[in-house]
Amino acid sequence: MKLLPDKTVERLSQYRRAMLKTLASGKHHIYSHEIANILHITPVQVRRDIMLIGYTGTLRHGYDVSELIEIIGTIIDSEEGTRVAVVGAGSLGSAIIRYFNGKRTKLSIVAAFDVNPDKLNKLYAGVPCYPFEKIQEIVKQENIQLAVIATPASETAKVAEALVNAGIKGILNYTPSPINVSSQVYLEEYDMVTSLEKVAYFAKHGK
Amino acid sequence: MKLLPDKTVERLSQYRRAMLKTLASGKHHIYSHEIANILHITPVQVRRDIMLIGYTGTLRHGYDVSELIEIIGTIIDSEEGTRVAVVGAGSLGSAIIRYFNGKRTKLSIVAAFDVNPDKLNKLYAGVPCYPFEKIQEIVKQENIQLAVIATPASETAKVAEALVNAGIKGILNYTPSPINVSSQVYLEEYDMVTSLEKVAYFAKHGK
Repeated sequence: MKLLPDKTVERLSQYRRAMLKTLASGKHHIYSHEIANILHITPVQVRRDIMLIGYTGTLRHGYDVSELIEIIGTIIDSEEGTRVAVVGAGSLGSAIIRYFNGKRTKLSIVAAFDVNPDKLNKLYAGVPCYPFEKIQEIVKQENIQLAVIATPASETAKVAEALVNAGIKGILNYTPSPINVSSQVYLEEYDMVTSLEKVAYFAKHGK
Repeated sequence: MKLLPDKTVERLSQYRRAMLKTLASGKHHIYSHEIANILHITPVQVRRDIMLIGYTGTLRHGYDVSELIEIIGTIIDSEEGTRVAVVGAGSLGSAIIRYFNGKRTKLSIVAAFDVNPDKLNKLYAGVPCYPFEKIQEIVKQENIQLAVIATPASETAKVAEALVNAGIKGILNYTPSPINVSSQVYLEEYDMVTSLEKVAYFAKHGK
């Protein structure tokens, strides 16, 4: 299959979550306009995304909810699950671990890293915290593929370099400091201040 | 001025942060290619964004850093500053408050809301936590314009409704539950699971 567009991948993740809820409520078939309603987008968008992954519903019953969940899984997930590390076990890092913990997903946060000796050898929502200098060793040992950076901005570049050297394949950077990684590593960056400044701008100017 | 594109607003926020650092390092002029380097984008993009806000540098010195910071401020910020509430003072909510606290921005988080009696009348990084049912009263009293939702997903719809009724102008929703608000309110949604699933997809398929 061709690489899917960014936005389609995001929506597939959202469709799956919506479908898991739908299934839990005892409903086994769903129409594109119902999915569209849950996510506040258009039914055309839903149909287009789902066609892109080669799945089709029927006119009579719509999509089979379980099949849709399974198909999205084969696209987004690794069969054996994806193992994730969080670097920085401060308030944001530990909130992220708690947030993921218990969510039904194939992503498991299996390690945290920090430089603060007070944080080491503690569990954050069941996840052990290792010293930052052991990153290379633990990433290999625990077969970690992705990492989330939640350190102070001053540490971002150093952390990113260590992650790339350790063989991490994808990074989600939550610090306000943009990073540069080799094209072998997929990078996603998100900063809360930028996001809230955007809300402030459009709330002020009335979008 | 015409309403700026979403992505331009995000980048302006990032330019400003980069310029504040530049200024702090004692540098007073900067070229578009230097800004581009910091943010890992193209110089053309930088020039285009800055032209959109009606500012121009000189060929000889580039942009005046202080002027650029000031001009971006007049566009994004309110003169009197923007007052923000965080709904949900759990681990994510309090991490958000701590994250903003101390950042040089015109956004101030001035109130948290929660339903848990144990959390009330406490300070989170200096921010008081009020009972959720007082939201209407406190939003008026504290002149709060924006809100961040960091509650469990099951509460999102109820919280959004209360915020709209209280007269909030912009919402940043960090729960995985999409909301529907009137067109009077600017809405931005972000979900960490979706974001990390996207990283997983592109890391797996090699973008």
